[in-house]
Order: sequence, then structure tokens, then C-alpha cells
Amino acid sequence: MNGAESLVRTLVAGGVDVCFANPGTSEMHFVAALDRVEGMRCVLGLFEGIVTGAADGYYRMKGTPASTLLHLGPGLANGLANLHNAKKANSGIVNIVGQHAVYHIEHNAPLTSDIEGLARPMSQWVRTSPSAKTVAADGAAAIAAASGAQAQIATLILPADTAWNEADGIAKVPAPEQRANFHAPAVDTAAKLAKEGETTLLLLTGSALTEQGLALAEQIAGKTGCKVISQTYNPRMARGRGRFFVERVPYVVDSALPVLKNFKNIVLIEANDPVAFFAYPNKPSMLKAEGCNVHRMTANGENSVAALEALASAVGAKPSDVKPQKHAELVKPTGKLDHASVAAAIAAGIPENAIVIDESITTGRGFFPVTAGAAPHDWLQNMGGSIGFSTPVAVGAAVACPDRKVICMVGDGSAMYTPQSLWTQARENLDVTTIVFANRNYQILKGEFDNVGAGAMGSRALDMLTLDRPHLDWVSLAKGMGVPGVAVTTAEEFSKALADANAAQGPKLIEVLM
Amino acid sequence: MNGAESLVRTLVAGGVDVCFANPGTSEMHFVAALDRVEGMRCVLGLFEGIVTGAADGYYRMKGTPASTLLHLGPGLANGLANLHNAKKANSGIVNIVGQHAVYHIEHNAPLTSDIEGLARPMSQWVRTSPSAKTVAADGAAAIAAASGAQAQIATLILPADTAWNEADGIAKVPAPEQRANFHAPAVDTAAKLAKEGETTLLLLTGSALTEQGLALAEQIAGKTGCKVISQTYNPRMARGRGRFFVERVPYVVDSALPVLKNFKNIVLIEANDPVAFFAYPNKPSMLKAEGCNVHRMTANGENSVAALEALASAVGAKPSDVKPQKHAELVKPTGKLDHASVAAAIAAGIPENAIVIDESITTGRGFFPVTAGAAPHDWLQNMGGSIGFSTPVAVGAAVACPDRKVICMVGDGSAMYTPQSLWTQARENLDVTTIVFANRNYQILKGEFDNVGAGAMGSRALDMLTLDRPHLDWVSLAKGMGVPGVAVTTAEEFSKALADANAAQGPKLIEVLM
Repeated sequence: MNGAESLVRTLVAGGVDVCFANPGTSEMHFVAALDRVEGMRCVLGLFEGIVTGAADGYYRMKGTPASTLLHLGPGLANGLANLHNAKKANSGIVNIVGQHAVYHIEHNAPLTSDIEGLARPMSQWVRTSPSAKTVAADGAAAIAAASGAQAQIATLILPADTAWNEADGIAKVPAPEQRANFHAPAVDTAAKLAKEGETTLLLLTGSALTEQGLALAEQIAGKTGCKVISQTYNPRMARGRGRFFVERVPYVVDSALPVLKNFKNIVLIEANDPVAFFAYPNKPSMLKAEGCNVHRMTANGENSVAALEALASAVGAKPSDVKPQKHAELVKPTGKLDHASVAAAIAAGIPENAIVIDESITTGRGFFPVTAGAAPHDWLQNMGGSIGFSTPVAVGAAVACPDRKVICMVGDGSAMYTPQSLWTQARENLDVTTIVFANRNYQILKGEFDNVGAGAMGSRALDMLTLDRPHLDWVSLAKGMGVPGVAVTTAEEFSKALADANAAQGPKLIEVLM
Repeated sequence: MNGAESLVRTLVAGGVDVCFANPGTSEMHFVAALDRVEGMRCVLGLFEGIVTGAADGYYRMKGTPASTLLHLGPGLANGLANLHNAKKANSGIVNIVGQHAVYHIEHNAPLTSDIEGLARPMSQWVRTSPSAKTVAADGAAAIAAASGAQAQIATLILPADTAWNEADGIAKVPAPEQRANFHAPAVDTAAKLAKEGETTLLLLTGSALTEQGLALAEQIAGKTGCKVISQTYNPRMARGRGRFFVERVPYVVDSALPVLKNFKNIVLIEANDPVAFFAYPNKPSMLKAEGCNVHRMTANGENSVAALEALASAVGAKPSDVKPQKHAELVKPTGKLDHASVAAAIAAGIPENAIVIDESITTGRGFFPVTAGAAPHDWLQNMGGSIGFSTPVAVGAAVACPDRKVICMVGDGSAMYTPQSLWTQARENLDVTTIVFANRNYQILKGEFDNVGAGAMGSRALDMLTLDRPHLDWVSLAKGMGVPGVAVTTAEEFSKALADANAAQGPKLIEVLM
């Protein structure tokens, strides 16, 4: 068998059985090996940002890595923005990038570039395999790096001759590192702080935001009086009826400061010390109150549910300590589409066990409380802030969970970075409903222009922040990629479009004309 | 004035009066400065690959750099593939990338990444400006680096506080380096080789491919019997009636080897020693014959027209030495669309003084000889091999030359990498006719699969190389971005659509169903 086949067989044997791909000439032996090896599902994306974003979505829902297949430096470059988002989400990806044959690189052919240099800023693990004899073992090492407690973006660079030369066979993947439990002294300290009551904040993200983690946090809060809030953005959160609703730290600095100013103690449960998304003149970078005592209970890779169990036990919290929560009632809104009616329609329209991908930006700022009483669902957010995240992540989530409806909520500006996702959704008949909020603006930037104190906006600045002239027509764009779409202009139409999409299977697009 | 304004004023004073932009929060002060400074045209792209590709096209037609405005590391990452193509084309770009305020970087907010690390593989010049006091001078240095004889991709990273803090005023741009003329001994050697006649090849690219450079090469060939061929891909070539037609080195290795095997001497006029685009098993990387003597007459940055004048003089060539060339006759084809009829329709349909951007890949392999007798035009190609090049380059060429028709020829696979170009063409009412060749395949990869000896193709491999299931509908995609489109299925329809587009002004799309 050649190197490409040894790698594909190693991937499949190592449990990596999905490959999101946009291959070129240097990857043709890898593509050929797909025909000879059973068990690898290969999903084509027409742009590399779809490929890497899909791998992120897949990991978040499956907990194990998919592989990618990208074409040389520029192919990797096109995938970097969503690798950035995936890295910030602590997702694991076996990111395979083709390279010229080793002996060809020195001749500086048109596609030659510094692939390792490009990979490093968005990968924690980078290796160029030197020969066909090493490709399988390097692939196994990449799987190990992308798996286990501290999953990484593992970029494996594959020179073409290492794919076509003779290999020695497949390699065994080292058992993934066991997820570290937690540090008992860190829990003891957290228990002391929790007992201080309402001046202590438990700040949650990561594995703490499962149904079980949230329930434990609720018991602790009920027992001690401490508060529970999640990060502004979280890789995945269990939400809806029967789950504990937590507020998030607000995105806007002037809204976040009053929320955090009352806490003398912040206990970080996988979360980061709260930081402003951007810097603004005369506003602080760090959002906690001056003198606030920040204590880390768990870090990424630790078992926050186990730690919360230990914390509950240390403070004597029991299931009966839970304070009842009253969720917003679900109502079908009527009349014109505004932020409130859109939010209500979504809350009523999220189907049981849905996966909600949220890149709704300004339109969605109010979605969170209103959807607390929706049918149970998972809520995925953008961790790296690079827009064009949601539609590719929806592809990967749908591939990972073919029996769950994916609801992808996206602003029109964001959706235009990676519209090619729709084609892959059509080709694979993925069960994704894409909701595009068409306010025809980079609406967030109008707020940010003001936030950074840039003064009064003139016509040239305004031109950089608007998406009108011409209007984007999302129904036509979707049709162009084989996805049926509908535009809605009233709350009733929107609710009906959501109900229709829920009743059917396969990709749909709803353009919400704001 | 703040740092942003000092930079914008420095750019305008330094002749950089176009900014292709996709800004975010950290760039809002730069955007605000656009309203206060007269003379900067700011063109919005909805994806960063449009922005950087447009800057490449602008430079190729104007010969002076445009600026870009990109949002932090991921925004730069999205623009890298077309920066790669621009770098390989020796284009100059003042590539401005926003960054967090200096004091905010250490807090690792979601969008934080190693921007300099990302920039270096695709930039020859990288600098982070440390303060508002230095931004103007750093901008001036970036203009100098992106201008003159050896224009570069100059990436200037602009922390947000350097934009909003108080600056000292504008900076003066150093006079660009004069283009080096040429080395007389290199011309003397070339003259000796040219006199050897038909076993000597003059291999041309860059400034040698102007109308004047081609005419001189034709005189030298007529006098000495040496051959003249251009690189496979060239940044820009003067073509059409009245210009000297030169063949290009074929892309396919098995076609290139017989062309080059008869040459004992190759004289490089800005060109690279011919290298295979990719490595293939059991085929050479370098395409010249064994023992071939390769001599460089001029390098990028030298004046090849002046060197060709000197060479003509050294071999005693005069205008009357030109051998007459018979160009293919222009005919309006009829009947079904195939490679021959499509080529004939394009040759007849290129209007006077057009700018032709060629990313037609397999469909266009036969376009070159047939279009030799078309109306005079410039022909621009992809120098870095990263697809998604042509539609953004068309944007920049049209901004640079508002009085010339731009014909953008692109395969459907390539066009899907950067479809957002169409929206910018609509917004700016750019005079671009985009011709999408819809063969619904990555057709080139079907050939490459065979070329690399990957064996027989099975269904899973085939799935990675086809764009059917579903069909892309380019007329709908164009409509979605405000560009009128038409699909054609016969040669007559195609010719009429081209004539209609030539008779009108503004963006059009023609989908050629192959």
C-alpha cells in the first residue's frame, strides 16, 4: 500500500471516519485511497472555510475529531479563519494539508509557500511528514493530538511523494489522554468562596454547560446564594425546558461592567477571566471589579461536572436546593418582524433536540432569555469572533448528528463570508434550516463606530457598514446552490416557514427581512 | 489629528487613493477618517479574498499600489490566498491589517492571534506600528515598499490605539526606487546565444510582454532565428491585432517537454527557469532539456524593454526583420458549445482595449492561439495557482481602468471560491462581464488524477471532483448579488450575450453551459 492508503487506513482504524475535503492535484492519491478503503465518509466543500468550520461543528457535537483535506498553503489559508474559531473553542481537528513532493519544493513552483508558517498561528500541533514510511505514524500522532482531554488543531502536512511512495502499513493511535478530573484544593477554595453567597460568581463554560453541570451549579447557587453566569460565548450549552437557564456576561462593555461589579470573587470553571471583546478608548480591558479575587476551579481539559459534584458536596447542596426558574412562555408572535417578534418565533420554532448555531450578532442579542423555555436543544456559538462561522459549523453538526435538526441563525453580513456551505448541505441532504437575518447592514459596526468614539458618521464611513446597494437576495443565492428558500416579512410568515422546515427533512433557507 | 487620519492623509498624499476594505471594530477610526479626508476611494468587499485580489488587479493595470483594510488575524487569513497570487505576480499592495489596542493584546480576547506570523508567508514586508506617532511614517514606508522597481506586499499592522491616539501629522513617502535598467554583460551574453539561432529560446514574462517588448523580441527572432515563448502564466500580456503573438510553455508536463527539448540555450527575460506546476511520479520537476544552458538576461525589477532594445541593437535587428504572423481569423461560431466554438466566440467577442482576466482552467486551454487576432487587449493570468483569483482581480482592474471593458473568464469551480466579487461589481457599477464556464466538474483534477498515476477512479474519488448534485445555477447566484445574468447553451446565444454585454455598461454574468 502507498503512503496515502496507509494514512487513510490509520485514520479509519483510529476512529476518524469523516473527512471534510477540498482537494487538489497534490492530494489526488489521498482521494484515490478513499475508493480502496471502506469506512471513510468524504464530504466536499467548495471553499476551504466550509471544510474547517464543518470539522469544528463535527467535533463540538461528536467529541471526536474529523479530518480535513486541504490543498497546499493557499488552501490552508482559506481555512484558517474557521480553524481560528475552532482553536478558540478547544475543538480537535486532524487538519491534513497537501504539499508538493519533497524534492519539488526547492524549485519554487507557483503554489509553493511556507505551509508550516501559515499553520502555526492557528494550530497547536504542526508536523510535515518526511516520507511515505512515516505518514501512518504521523497520522496516528495527529489523531492523538486532536483527541482526548486537551484536543488540539493538529496540522499534518503531507508532501505528495509521501502519498504515492510505498508505505509500511497502518499505525496504531496511542490511547487518548484521560480527561484530568480536577484539583481537589481548587474545589475546596471554590467552596469557601461559594459560601460567601451573592458576592461570589461561578463563571461557567466548556463541559460545565452540560445539562448535568448546569443542574449542579443550580443546586450550589440555591444552597449558598452565589450567582451562576456563563461566558459571553460558549462552544456548546444545553438549554431549553428542564435545563437550568444561566445569563451570559453581556458583550457590550457598558452592560458587562454593572453585572460584574458586585462580585468580590469570581470562580472560573473552564472560563476565562472576563475580557472585553475589543478595546475601547477609556474603557477597561478586564471586566471584573477592581480588587476582585479570581480563582480558577477547573481549566479546559478538566472534568467540570465531577468538580461541580465535589463542590456541591463540599457546600452541602442537594437537588432540592434548586430554586425554581420561570422560563419565558412560548407565544406565536403576530404582526411585523422586529427583534422581539423574531425572538419569539424562534423560541416557539426550535424543535425538540435541535442543534442551534448562533451567529445572529445584533439581531440575536435578545434571543437568549426568550429561548430558555424552548424545547430542549444545544446552543453553539462563535468562540473566535471570525464571522462566516455558523453555516460551515452547521454542516459539521448535521454530519455528526444526522437525526437532529440543525437551526443555523446568521446575520446577512456573516453569511456572505461562507455562503458555499449551502451547496454542501444540498449535496449531502443535511437537515439544516438556515435563518438569515437580512438587516442589510454590518449592524454591529454601527454600534462599534460609536463605542470606539469615532464621532459622527459621514457617507463614506456609512458605505463601509451597509449591505444595501444592491440588496442581497438570499432566496436566489440559496436557489443557486440547490437549497430551497423563502423570504418572510411578517411574524406569521416566519412562524409558518419554521414550521414547514421542521416538518420536512433536508436543507432550507429562510430569509428574514428585518 | 489622530493616528488613523495621519495614515489616511499620508496614503492620499503618497498617491495611494484607493482602499479595498472589509473593516471591523478595530478599524472604525480608519473608516471615520475617510469622511474627513478627501481623495480616498473606499471600495467594500464582503469577503477579504475580494479585497486582496482587487488590490492585485489594480496594481497590474495601474502600476501603483492600492491599500487594503482587513480586520485582525482572521480577516488577514481570509485574504492570504489572493495575497499569495499577488506576491507571485510581483504586485505591490499596502496591506493594512487592524489589531487590538497594544495594551489589549496580552488579554487573549477571542480575536487575538499572531498577525505577524500569519502575514509573513505572503508578505515581503511586515511591520506593526507601535504608536499613533509612528503610524504615518510606517505608512509612508509601506507605500515605498509596495512601489517602485521591486514592488512588494507590504503588510502594515495597525493597533487600534495607534489609530485613535493623537498623531504628529502626515509623513512624506520616500521617492520610489528607480527601476533598474539592465546589466550590459547579461545582454552581451544573450546576444551571443541569440545568434545561435533556433536552438536558443528567449523566455519572456513581466515587462517584456508589453506591445513594445514583444515587437523587439519579434525583430530579434526574425534576425537571428531564435525562438520566443512566454511563461505558462504571466501577470499581464499585450495581445491581439497588431501585437506579436507568442506561444506559452504548455502547462502539461508531457506537452512542455517536447517544446523545450530542442533548446540548447534558454535566455530568461524576467522569467523563471521553467518548472512543472506540480510534481508527478517519474516526471522531472525542471522542464528544460538535460545540459541546457540557462542564462538570465533580466530579473523582476529590471527594464526588459530597454534590455531588449540593447539586445536588438547587439544582434543588428531592425523593425524590417519581423517575420509576418498570420493570426487566426475571427469567425462567429454556430451550433453547439464546445471548446472550439467557445474559444471562437470569445475571440470575436473581445472588445477593443479590453482587459481579459483568464481563470478558465481546462475550458480555456485552447483560447490562446484563437484570440491572437482579437481586438487589442491585455491578458492577465493567475501567478500563484490559488483559485478564486479572477473575479476579485476583475474588480481591481475595473476600478483602475474605468474606461475599459473587463472580461473575466472563470471556471465554475474557481468562481465558487470568491463569488462575493459580483456584489462589489454591482455596488460600484464596474464594467465587468463575467463568463462562467459551467462544466460542473473540477475538470482539471480529472486529468491530474491520471497524471499522478492514481489509478482507476471509483465513485468516492469521483464525488470529490464533480460539482453536480446539485448543479450550481450561476444566473441565480448573480441575481442574488445584484448582477444580471444569462445562461447560454449554443454558440449563437453565447455570441449574442457577449455582444449585448459589450453594448452595455456595468456588470453582467454569462453562464456558459458546457
